[in-house]
Formats: sequence, structure tokens, C-alpha cells
Amino acid sequence: MSSTIETDAKVRLAEVVGAHNLLAGDEVGEDYGHDETLQVEPAKPAYVAKPGTAEEVAELLATASELRIPVTARGSATGLSAAARPVDGGLVISFERMNRVLEVDTVNHVAVVQPGVRLDELDKATADHGLAYTVYPGEQSASVGGNVGTNAGGMRAVKYGVTRHNVLGLQAALPTGELIRTGGRIAKISNGYDLTQLIIGSEGSLALATEVIVKLVPRLPHSATVLAPFREFTEVVQAVPKVIGSGLAPHILEYIDNLTMAAITHTSQLELGIPDSVRDTAQAYLVVALENREQDRLDADVQAVAERLTELGAMDCYVLDGSSARKLIQAREHAFWTAKAAGAHDVIDVVVPRSAMPEFLTKARELAMQNESGVVGCGHAGDGNVHLAVFQADPIKRQELLLAIFSEGARLGGAISGEHGIGRAKRGYFQALEDPAKIELMRRIKQAFDPAGILNPGVLFDPISPESEH
Amino acid sequence: MSSTIETDAKVRLAEVVGAHNLLAGDEVGEDYGHDETLQVEPAKPAYVAKPGTAEEVAELLATASELRIPVTARGSATGLSAAARPVDGGLVISFERMNRVLEVDTVNHVAVVQPGVRLDELDKATADHGLAYTVYPGEQSASVGGNVGTNAGGMRAVKYGVTRHNVLGLQAALPTGELIRTGGRIAKISNGYDLTQLIIGSEGSLALATEVIVKLVPRLPHSATVLAPFREFTEVVQAVPKVIGSGLAPHILEYIDNLTMAAITHTSQLELGIPDSVRDTAQAYLVVALENREQDRLDADVQAVAERLTELGAMDCYVLDGSSARKLIQAREHAFWTAKAAGAHDVIDVVVPRSAMPEFLTKARELAMQNESGVVGCGHAGDGNVHLAVFQADPIKRQELLLAIFSEGARLGGAISGEHGIGRAKRGYFQALEDPAKIELMRRIKQAFDPAGILNPGVLFDPISPESEH
Repeated sequence: MSSTIETDAKVRLAEVVGAHNLLAGDEVGEDYGHDETLQVEPAKPAYVAKPGTAEEVAELLATASELRIPVTARGSATGLSAAARPVDGGLVISFERMNRVLEVDTVNHVAVVQPGVRLDELDKATADHGLAYTVYPGEQSASVGGNVGTNAGGMRAVKYGVTRHNVLGLQAALPTGELIRTGGRIAKISNGYDLTQLIIGSEGSLALATEVIVKLVPRLPHSATVLAPFREFTEVVQAVPKVIGSGLAPHILEYIDNLTMAAITHTSQLELGIPDSVRDTAQAYLVVALENREQDRLDADVQAVAERLTELGAMDCYVLDGSSARKLIQAREHAFWTAKAAGAHDVIDVVVPRSAMPEFLTKARELAMQNESGVVGCGHAGDGNVHLAVFQADPIKRQELLLAIFSEGARLGGAISGEHGIGRAKRGYFQALEDPAKIELMRRIKQAFDPAGILNPGVLFDPISPESEH
Repeated sequence: MSSTIETDAKVRLAEVVGAHNLLAGDEVGEDYGHDETLQVEPAKPAYVAKPGTAEEVAELLATASELRIPVTARGSATGLSAAARPVDGGLVISFERMNRVLEVDTVNHVAVVQPGVRLDELDKATADHGLAYTVYPGEQSASVGGNVGTNAGGMRAVKYGVTRHNVLGLQAALPTGELIRTGGRIAKISNGYDLTQLIIGSEGSLALATEVIVKLVPRLPHSATVLAPFREFTEVVQAVPKVIGSGLAPHILEYIDNLTMAAITHTSQLELGIPDSVRDTAQAYLVVALENREQDRLDADVQAVAERLTELGAMDCYVLDGSSARKLIQAREHAFWTAKAAGAHDVIDVVVPRSAMPEFLTKARELAMQNESGVVGCGHAGDGNVHLAVFQADPIKRQELLLAIFSEGARLGGAISGEHGIGRAKRGYFQALEDPAKIELMRRIKQAFDPAGILNPGVLFDPISPESEH
């Protein structure tokens, strides 16, 4: 880029958001160059714009399309696939100023929010109304806009579904500069192609959400958590469809392997009252959380789940008190940080049919052993989303291992990612393993939205022109 | 079309499916020319092909693309938007032979089905396993492929969502002749653009589903239905968020206006035990169905709902016995046929935020009165999906009325259709009322899938070249 063009771009972008809401060159802090993904080099974006309105976002995109500046959206940047890692020399659109809960609508049971709203803030805003937005990825500082970008899932998906099941409408800025509205305060719609659903999970590569209508559900007042150690992981997996099939509707159904359990109880100084004899023999734990409108029904359900799990081979069942349960769930939510602190080189979240989890995990461990690497994990037992911390310092060997693990997931009818997304971190694997006909179709869809190719080039697939990513 | 081309096409298509599975010219029965939509002229397709495999579907599409023959998919043809009305001279791909439930997977809680499977057949296949596919549009002879095409909703959507929330994966044939697989036996996925969701609701204009993986949920054994008459429709609407917000999780939440109630009780010879005094004063009825794993919890919930509804202004609450409840729900499901038998000229299903239902209905009735027309209705109170039977014999006046009613729905934050779709019947209104930027974007998406423009030209928007629809 010549410096004239740079100056021109700076002036043009500053005209849109105001000079005080534009950072350029050395003003751009290091933080804007990365998200939480391990093993991805941070980038040096040339500009950070902080729009205050949807119209400004649209105008930024129109300007970027005209000047051919690659654009990456940024919410809280807690992502784990480098989809919020910008492009060197590109523009970051940071939603830090667009962070308001605009309305909690208690009749239609929706909240209308700006994309920069954090999940913990939205949770606070809805709690007083007895309502909740149920998407709970581990990180509560994540933004709703980020949820939309990656189609975030989290622990409660087993009962409430993932982001795409909980977003009813969007206002979005197209790369061509138009603002559109999709869906609405309505759960049902058959009115042309579902652009809401297409934008969700597109990792900021098709359009940028500038307002999000999320579904709220009644916040049930009573909940309890049962922890069940099992001798074999297979038993955990076999128990899952039985628990769900009973109609008890658990809202959390997680497994934690023995190594991860040791790490998180140690890190969180969590005393769960599990005797050493059980701890030494248990290969995996199942965590089942139940909720109810009424305490007595909850108590009866906990009893029923505990009996069922014991029949299904649990070594014991511990009903955790509120504080231990909260700590365990929090520790599980922070498993990523535990893995990072333990020196994990990468963290992945393959999804497979839940019936295939034992075979997948056995194979992943074998592959790791052959590769002189280590994998330990925990994950969403209810939906087959396996989170693995990978220990292998050598990048080439790590790449070989990841490709082999992802291939195995695909072979078993799964996908590279259940909720973290592909982003930049996994696009090589995605392109290697995905059906070329689908990749071609996705590229044509990308082209339909973004003829100039400015929106987050380098996520999902290699940018069309190599110059658009440096 | 010259007769050489016709002969050539016939030979080519017969090569794909076998001569005995291809109808041409006069062999094509009248039934193949329409679906259940009122007021749409039937068409005369030139060919009906009955493929037996996904590969044959893909090959039919490749051939049609090459020969530029417009293609319309047909399941049970119970649709109400003429999306299954073919194009004169075109090809109907009828899924009547691809009608098997391939697997009921009790571990992953999915069924894998061919698109021609009817909902009542799928219901039977899953019942023995204590599981259910929860999409229940009125017509149980509808096919799963048809559900996918229109994103069908139905009465249970208030608890279980619509088709897009209950389809986890597809095998689909692209118009360019490739077969792709999307999603899988997995509820969570973040692996590129969600083609499953894009194909659902696209009315057979992007790709044709050749296999569908549907989500199954536990079939709860106990259910009960409460019928509550109200003096004012507004009271019905105000009661809805209170009932949902209580966490009682009704699986049906319908309203029926007094005229429709009179018609369906008369037609179904339904005796609900409502005294004349109530019947004469009630302006609308709310139907609430609850279900539970346990009979005693259900009884307590029914009690709680009845008390709540009485507090909220219900004139009385009738707990219907199993047989009356079944009849009422069936009669409600068949409201379309009742309206048709009563001489309705059209049936529409506008969706608005549920808070806006009273304003919408008042306005719709005013508009009808000004237009010397009549509207009566019932609908999904839980999700703002208002079904209206429209009485106006004059096509020009009817068109004016529909445009005015649809505009009003859009103004209130809703859409032309909640579950019937746009199809051919409502494309004029859709093009008049939808944001042109969105229409353009949808056209480009269509182009990305279907460069030859063969798939169901004339649904959603005018065909690109006028010759492609006669």
C-alpha cells in the first residue's frame, strides 16, 4: 500500500466514525491483533474503527469495499479459531461501543441487543424479568455478536440448542453497504431464504450483525447437579441416551475424563467428597444438571437420575451442593484456561454422533500415542462435542496429529468443530477434508454477499486473491 | 419446445429412472399439476419422473440443467403456497417411491428418512421407541421433504420449534448434479456456512433433499388439553406470555375465534360442554395442551394453568377428556378444510410478534370490511402465526385486500408467512413488500446454487428469463 492510499483510507474511515473513534498505525494496540486461539501469530491491522451505530458499520463496509480493505469484526475476541484475528494492514471493526441491551421484551420473550453486549451483561438484564438467554459458552465475557459469528454452543445446548436456535432476527450490514433486517420478534417464518441462519456461523465473512434479536426462555428457579464417576468411558456414553430418553430434560450433560478432573479440582481447589478409591478407579465422570419450577419435583428428578445412573453402572452418585456445583461447572467452563495453563499446545472441539464418542476418543488417544503426543479432554456428552487439549510442541507433528484426528471425526459422521468454528486456525484442515462441491458452493455464496472479498478473508477458505491477505 | 427436443428429453430422463418410472405427455395425471393452494391455476408438466435413489435425483437435475428443463419437486403436494405447482412443460420429480424410514437411531435420537416419507408413517415408526418427530403441521399426510421445502411449523412449534430446529442434516442433490451431505447425527456444528439451514425453507429452489436426518425427542406419555373461552381476543393474547413465562411449557397454545369455533364444532359434531351463555359471549378461545412424564404432575399443571387462566380473565376453563381433546385438535388441524368447505377464497398465515396479534386482527377485519370481504381465523397464539380464511370472490379486490393485510403484518414486524411459505401464490406480494436489497441477495444466492435456473423457477421471485416459466 502506498502512503497516499493509507492517508486517504484513514481520512475516509475517520469521516465515518469520527477521528476519536479511529485508531491507525501505532495507535493500534497489540490486543486488537488476536483472539484467544493458541498457536496463531497475531496480526498488525492498520486501523481499528469503533462505530456507534448500525449506519456507521454499513458505511465502514461500503468504504472498505471501495478501497479494498479487508475487514475483521471484533466483539470480545474470546474466540478459539482465530476468526477475530484480523488481516495485516486491514481494518478491525470493534463493537466495543455498540454494547447495549436495547430492550427486554417480556411479552414476546425476546431481547434486542447490540452485538457488543457481553453474555454476563445480558444475563443480568434478563434475570430480573425471570427470563434467560440460554447460550452459555464457557466464557461469559463473550459477546452476542461473537455468538452469532461462530454459532456458539456451550453446555446448555443439550436442552436449549445452540445460537442458531436462539437468535430470531438480525439487523446486519452487508459488505456492499446496505443494512438489512432479517427475521424479527417471531419464532416462525417462511419468507424466502433464511438469511438469519446463513449469517449465523459465517464467522464474519458474509455480513456483520449490528443488532440481534435473541429468544428468551423462562428462568427456572431450582436446579441441582449430580456427579457420577464411571469405570469406563463407554458406560458414560451408554448412559446419555437413557437419561435423555427418560424425558428428565437435563440442561447440562457433560463428561470429564479423569486427568481433566484431577486438573480442574486441583486448580479450583474443589473438594467434591469423592473417596480416593473411587477417584483412582474412575475413568470418566458424567455431570448431569437438572432444573425445575418446583423444588419438590427437582428433588424427585434428582433421585430418579441417581437411581438410573446407578443402574447404568455409575460407581456412585454425588448430589453436589450449590456452591460445589457452581464451582465444578465454572471449572469445567474454564477447562480451556486449565489446559492452557497446563501447557497445552492446542485445544480442539470435534463433534461426532454421541454414539461414536468412545470410538473417537480411543482412536484419538491411539493417534496421539503414535505421534508421541498427548490428548486429554472433557466435553458435551449430550451432543457428542469432544473438547481435547493437545500436547505436542512440534508444529509439524501437531499438524499431522490434528489432521488425523479431524479425519477420524469426519469418518465417524462428525465435523471439525461443534462450536469453536473453523476460522483461520483450521481452514487448512477444513479445505482438506470437506467435500470440494460444498467448498465451491460456499465460495459462490461468499461471492454473492461480498463481491469485493473484503469480509474476513482467510477464514474458512484461502482468500480468493492472495493479496487480500498478507 | 420443438418435438425433437421433447423426444430427446424423454429418452434422456427415461434413461435415468427407467421408462416405467417416467410419465410424459398425456400419461401425466392432472393431480401432478397442483398442490392444495386455492386460486392457483393448475399447470401441465411435460414429464413426471419417479426416482428411486439419490443418485437418480442428482442425474435428473444434471440432465435438466443441460437441457434447461424447469424442475419442481413433489412430496405429498399438501402445500398451500403453490410451491409444488410445477411449470407448464416442465419436469416434476415425484418422491413417491423414495418413502422409506431408513433408520430410527435410538442412541443419537434421530431418524434417517427419505423425503417422501409421510408424517403419519414417521410417527408410527418412532412411537414404538418412545420417541417423536415434533413437527406437526395440520396435514399428517404431508411429507418430510415437503416440511424441509417450506420450513413447516404447526401447533407444537411453541415448545419444539419448526422444521429448521428439528432437521440436523441432509443429503441433497444440487441442480448442477452433485450430491452433498450437510450436518449429520449431531446437534451442534460450526463448520462453514450452514447449507442445511439454507436449503430448509427454500421451496425447492436451491437443492432437493434426498435424505433427511430428523431430531427425535422423548414422547411424553401423559397429556391434557384445557379450553378457555375469553370475552376479548386481547385477553387471550395477554394470557399467552404469562402461561409461557410460568415455565409450564405447553406444547400447544392455539386461539380459535368464535366463528371458526362454531364452524369446526359443527363440522366435527364436537360437543365440548360449553353452555350457550358462554358460547354467545366468548369472542375467542385459547387451547392449551400440556404433557408430562408423570400423570400426577400433569394433573397439578392442568390445575395451575386453569387457575392462571381464570385470574387472567377466562370465563371458564374446560379440561377436555382425551376423545374431545383429540377431536378438537384434529378439527383445528383441519381448519383449512373447514374454511375451504365454507367457500373461503383464500387461506393465509401471516406471522406477527404475538404482542401485535390484537392490533393485526383488528386491522385485518377493518380492511376486510372496507373491502366488502370477510376474514375469520384461528392460529398459533404462542408464536403469533395468524391463519385467516379470506372470503372475497373478486380476484382484483381479493388481491388488494391481501396486499393491505400483508403490508400491515410487515409494518407490525412480521412476515407474509409463518409456515405456508411464499411459493408461487404469494411471490407478487413478497416482491412488493420485501426489501429490494434482500431480494437481490436471495437472487444471487439462487444463482450460486442453480446457474441454469432450473429449480422451481417462479417461486419466491419472478423467473430470471420469462421463457423459463410459461
